Amino acid sequence: MRIFSTLVFPRRQQQIFNLRRFQTTTIRRNPISIAPIQIPMDAEQSLRQSLSEKSSSVEAQGNAVRALKASRAAKPEIDAAIEQLNKLKLEKSAVEKELQSIISSSGNGSLNREAFRKAVVNTLERRLFYIPSFKIYSGVAGLFDYGPPGCAIKSNVLSFWRQHFILEENMLEVDCPCVTPEVVLKASGHVDKFTDLMVKDEKTGTCYRADHLLKDYCTEKLEKDLTISAEKAAELKDVLAVMEDFSPEQLGAKIKEYGITAPDTKNPLSDPYPFNLMFQTSIGPSGLIPGYMRPETAQGIFVNFKDLYYYNGKKLPFAAAQIGQAFRNEISPRQGLLRVREFTLAEIEHFVDPENKSHPKFSDVAKLEFLMFPREEQMSGQSAKKLCLGEAVAKGTVNNETLGYFIGRVYLFLTRLGIDKERLRFRQHLANEMAHYAADCWDAEIESSYGWIECVGIADRSAYDLRAHSDKSGVPLVAEEKFAEPKEVEKLVITPVKKELGLAFKGNQKNVVESLEAMNEEEAMEMKASLESKGEVEFYVCTLNKTVSIKKNMVSISKEKKKEHQRVFTPSVIEPSFGIGRIIYCLYEHCFSTRPSKAGDEQLNLFRFPPLVAPIKCTVFPLVQNQQFEEAAKVISKELASVGISHKIDITGTSIGKRYARTDELGVPFAITVDSDTSVTIRERDSKDQVRVSLKEAASVVSSVSEGKMTWQDVWASFPHHSSAAADE
Amino acid sequence: MRIFSTLVFPRRQQQIFNLRRFQTTTIRRNPISIAPIQIPMDAEQSLRQSLSEKSSSVEAQGNAVRALKASRAAKPEIDAAIEQLNKLKLEKSAVEKELQSIISSSGNGSLNREAFRKAVVNTLERRLFYIPSFKIYSGVAGLFDYGPPGCAIKSNVLSFWRQHFILEENMLEVDCPCVTPEVVLKASGHVDKFTDLMVKDEKTGTCYRADHLLKDYCTEKLEKDLTISAEKAAELKDVLAVMEDFSPEQLGAKIKEYGITAPDTKNPLSDPYPFNLMFQTSIGPSGLIPGYMRPETAQGIFVNFKDLYYYNGKKLPFAAAQIGQAFRNEISPRQGLLRVREFTLAEIEHFVDPENKSHPKFSDVAKLEFLMFPREEQMSGQSAKKLCLGEAVAKGTVNNETLGYFIGRVYLFLTRLGIDKERLRFRQHLANEMAHYAADCWDAEIESSYGWIECVGIADRSAYDLRAHSDKSGVPLVAEEKFAEPKEVEKLVITPVKKELGLAFKGNQKNVVESLEAMNEEEAMEMKASLESKGEVEFYVCTLNKTVSIKKNMVSISKEKKKEHQRVFTPSVIEPSFGIGRIIYCLYEHCFSTRPSKAGDEQLNLFRFPPLVAPIKCTVFPLVQNQQFEEAAKVISKELASVGISHKIDITGTSIGKRYARTDELGVPFAITVDSDTSVTIRERDSKDQVRVSLKEAASVVSSVSEGKMTWQDVWASFPHHSSAAADE
Repeated sequence: MRIFSTLVFPRRQQQIFNLRRFQTTTIRRNPISIAPIQIPMDAEQSLRQSLSEKSSSVEAQGNAVRALKASRAAKPEIDAAIEQLNKLKLEKSAVEKELQSIISSSGNGSLNREAFRKAVVNTLERRLFYIPSFKIYSGVAGLFDYGPPGCAIKSNVLSFWRQHFILEENMLEVDCPCVTPEVVLKASGHVDKFTDLMVKDEKTGTCYRADHLLKDYCTEKLEKDLTISAEKAAELKDVLAVMEDFSPEQLGAKIKEYGITAPDTKNPLSDPYPFNLMFQTSIGPSGLIPGYMRPETAQGIFVNFKDLYYYNGKKLPFAAAQIGQAFRNEISPRQGLLRVREFTLAEIEHFVDPENKSHPKFSDVAKLEFLMFPREEQMSGQSAKKLCLGEAVAKGTVNNETLGYFIGRVYLFLTRLGIDKERLRFRQHLANEMAHYAADCWDAEIESSYGWIECVGIADRSAYDLRAHSDKSGVPLVAEEKFAEPKEVEKLVITPVKKELGLAFKGNQKNVVESLEAMNEEEAMEMKASLESKGEVEFYVCTLNKTVSIKKNMVSISKEKKKEHQRVFTPSVIEPSFGIGRIIYCLYEHCFSTRPSKAGDEQLNLFRFPPLVAPIKCTVFPLVQNQQFEEAAKVISKELASVGISHKIDITGTSIGKRYARTDELGVPFAITVDSDTSVTIRERDSKDQVRVSLKEAASVVSSVSEGKMTWQDVWASFPHHSSAAADE
Repeated sequence: MRIFSTLVFPRRQQQIFNLRRFQTTTIRRNPISIAPIQIPMDAEQSLRQSLSEKSSSVEAQGNAVRALKASRAAKPEIDAAIEQLNKLKLEKSAVEKELQSIISSSGNGSLNREAFRKAVVNTLERRLFYIPSFKIYSGVAGLFDYGPPGCAIKSNVLSFWRQHFILEENMLEVDCPCVTPEVVLKASGHVDKFTDLMVKDEKTGTCYRADHLLKDYCTEKLEKDLTISAEKAAELKDVLAVMEDFSPEQLGAKIKEYGITAPDTKNPLSDPYPFNLMFQTSIGPSGLIPGYMRPETAQGIFVNFKDLYYYNGKKLPFAAAQIGQAFRNEISPRQGLLRVREFTLAEIEHFVDPENKSHPKFSDVAKLEFLMFPREEQMSGQSAKKLCLGEAVAKGTVNNETLGYFIGRVYLFLTRLGIDKERLRFRQHLANEMAHYAADCWDAEIESSYGWIECVGIADRSAYDLRAHSDKSGVPLVAEEKFAEPKEVEKLVITPVKKELGLAFKGNQKNVVESLEAMNEEEAMEMKASLESKGEVEFYVCTLNKTVSIKKNMVSISKEKKKEHQRVFTPSVIEPSFGIGRIIYCLYEHCFSTRPSKAGDEQLNLFRFPPLVAPIKCTVFPLVQNQQFEEAAKVISKELASVGISHKIDITGTSIGKRYARTDELGVPFAITVDSDTSVTIRERDSKDQVRVSLKEAASVVSSVSEGKMTWQDVWASFPHHSSAAADE
């Protein structure tokens, strides 16, 4: 019999790992490509097979022709053989073409996606939504600045996050430093486990991410090499699917097997070894206190649990939240704004009694329906489907109400920002993706030109984090439930006999004792039964990573009755964690659009941002350069500023059509054009519709419609329409 | 003749130094203690002198008595001498007492200040306005978390900053990473000069800030040692006044002279040496790209100047702004929340044509009157006085309109937040405090229990920063002014004759060439005249720090006429830089107050925050525990949340008076008490006045008065008053 100890050990990196490797997991997640035996002989594979057969035939026939010539066979015989050879060559060539077209057509989607991405990114860079950081010094990979419109969008997204989560849910916000002493990140597991596998060019020392090299090799082989066999192609696809779970040794073996060398120099590569992704520094002048730039904001909340619990009147549940910078020293950042070395996280830690994970406001979200992708659907090769959240919780697909509540709130948050609900899905972690202590975990994934991107992780992490810091600091991070009257409880008592254990395990005694004490009731009672019947039991000690033999005299296990006045327990934590930069990038892609210019001679870009997130809510244009109109524009501008509506005034002489196009490209939803000294027009970006409003009302109308107190439909219904034909557009 | 080259060199640290060392500069800034010759013989000094004389007399008389006894003089003679000795001892003791009382009365103020600070800080820590970071792991000096109310205040201050500066002034906001490659901070001067002087315990290696040790020594000597002479006391005061300008050698010499040892061990100390205050790290996996956590946010703006200038349609002036974390690895952080290792800065860089620093909106602030402390007043020993901003600019006290405009806007910002205008002054930098390139510099200083604290620096830094990055990166960071028609201009042409310079200066040739080319017109024409009359001139090359001899054949200087179509120039920058944490701490002190409880048996704390910054705008209390009232409270809570008013609902059975006191201490300005199912009372914190409002209106009234759309006076005038005598308070 083998009992696994429940002693917790740091596996947070498992979740972080997933949070970090969306691309490979996206591929792996289609189980059709996970298990080779399930793969049906698809068109590509049969063509590869047929191509390989044709090649063999051509080669055989070529040999036959040469043999006939060598044996001076009769000319008609030789001619017939040559004719046959040419026919075979033609056949081979036809198959080759067909295979090529299949590969490039499957690649075509990615070409289209890349063209689309290029258009978006071009516009973003040109209009300063973002800027590669330190550009005049050639930049630094993985670091980006938000320029003015990007910065405004980020600020709007964070304001709305504060409103939607912190304010509406009465969360306790904290703001902790980025500089973090080692002990905190040792307790959380980051110092030991927050790593990626790296290989070095053995001659130049240049570093590469090991999995990237293997992935690039496989992808390129599959896309560009027609001569590989169907079996080889299947193998490469399989490697792509499972490489995320490779050990350093397995990864190293594959790199050797495929003869992969350093991309720039073709030099041999070192074996893969783990590289810690935290930026290291040193606190204070002595150089003796190691510190790191935090890789996530969550730890700042956990270490403050006790104070926050008291602040909340010692009542559960409550949630704490933090918005702040996080830092990850990526080995070789790729994928633009999605994989960066410094980014803004917004994290919530909702602390809850593990015995009661119901949520009083769950009914507010229970009727929502959206794309969900439960574990079972992934395993059986189905795709995401629309589910009703209330039913998903009722059926146990989602583990509990609180987790379900946050899934619903995240859905509302993202779609109100402007994320397309058809390109948003909630994907449940597979059993092997989840940390062993996690009860359930769902990622909000948004589809972009890079594939499905994990943007929000919503995990029920049980009591893991609080326990880890309790253990390391010696400060109990627990909650109490006072009983109305004392309760008689039966309590499990595990008493390791240290003398016997010391004799048996010497230096390992402590690990064995801890593992024994950490057994849950079921494990302990099972052990008790085995010890009583067999006198001995095999016991797995995870901190030693081995199985030891426990004898009857080494531990006493019993149940005792006690009177208790309160229950002391470590709360569970449900953690929604938002990658703000990723959400913003996906928003850019979902809002980007083009439409023909009025003359029809070019395509104009526009961002269809909802007013809530638009970087500038309104532009103010005097129709022509004229002091009277400019004065009126300045009055409106001042009124807009005083009510906090971000806007831009443009008094250049450029044609009004060009000015509209310029601001459409920034995603400005409304434009006020001053064309008289008593009234103005207000234009809406997406419809290009215009209404006429008095000068005095202009600012307040735009303010109402920008802040969602009114819709454009309301405006359209309330004011006289202005014919755009009459306008300069 | 000696000509100083105008070649700029990094002296930014000068300004930062001042920004960092408010305490010592505060002392130094009173010139009475700067120049010993000016110091009048004050009461303390004359008492010290008299005490020293009395001590000598007592000693002399003691000797006389002993001599008489030794020579067996007559008893009456000895008795008379003893009587005289006792009289002198009494006199000495009286002087001692008087001196003691003068020292401790001047110290008394600081005792009161410390008691006040302790009360504030106690409340702040208890109510989780802030928390020492990583407390469960014994914390890290100089790192603090903002807890829920502190976090809300910070978020309110930053929102208002965005509204008041970015939105109302149409600034371009950017958001750059904290991780910064070395080259950027090399160009800015931080890598070489951003240092404090440190000494080490020679045996244990413990580090101390050298100036702190000297300051502590002088202060303690002055406060506790009555035996030091008047001259010694004056010397110590003088050291305190001028130590900020000490070189490492001067500081080291004083430490040796006074025999100062390591405070903890009394071991000898090393010589002082500079310690760079930046947190260092390494970017990427190779360990070969050194980087730092930025010590300020300004550099991120400067390196983006070119893009921002284009974004602004190549028009000056414009301002860019950034809010973000900055990091300074203090040697030994003291003074709680004022000197920390990680903090939030909000910085504005307003780029302007150096030939036109007028500001179109200056008239909006010209009539403001507030405490200003110009250079002349400081030098002549006067104190800050109320000046009209418009006049200060007109008279040239403030260098230019743009600088003046920002001083005015900063005044409005701080006072609207709740900073007491009587404890806010704008102090001009003395000539020796300012970097040589700076045109003028004013600090907004706020008085707190620590003295006058520099919270905002407003500097006209001329073209220094843009030039530094232009030089280092090779990318011209300039603006252009197109002329309506070409202008004929006379242009200074300096042509160093490299061959001759090479022969004369060999390896130093490059430095000499650069210094020659960097001369301004006046310097160059002066050199030309000297060369023509004397054939030779002495020339100071600052990058060599020596004077060289320039001969006539080494440089040609002339003025040439040219037609120019545009003027290309490096803009000047005016930089208001806000230490957000310091402002918030001063706000805590200015808003803190106490008042007796109703029973009069204890003092209750309250924070009189304006609604704009209050962490929570409103509490909602059911008067008694009752389902009907609780339901009503929840309805109001939901309404408040939907309009974005932060609030707290408290349904505990605690007495209403206690609940009021609890929220007064958090600075919550309004409380809604539900005492019926149709109407509620609204209580204002400072006056404790209450009005009765219908249930339906409650949320909207609180929302209006919280957002400044209505004042409490308006509310008081519009609704029936509720007698607080009837209430539970």
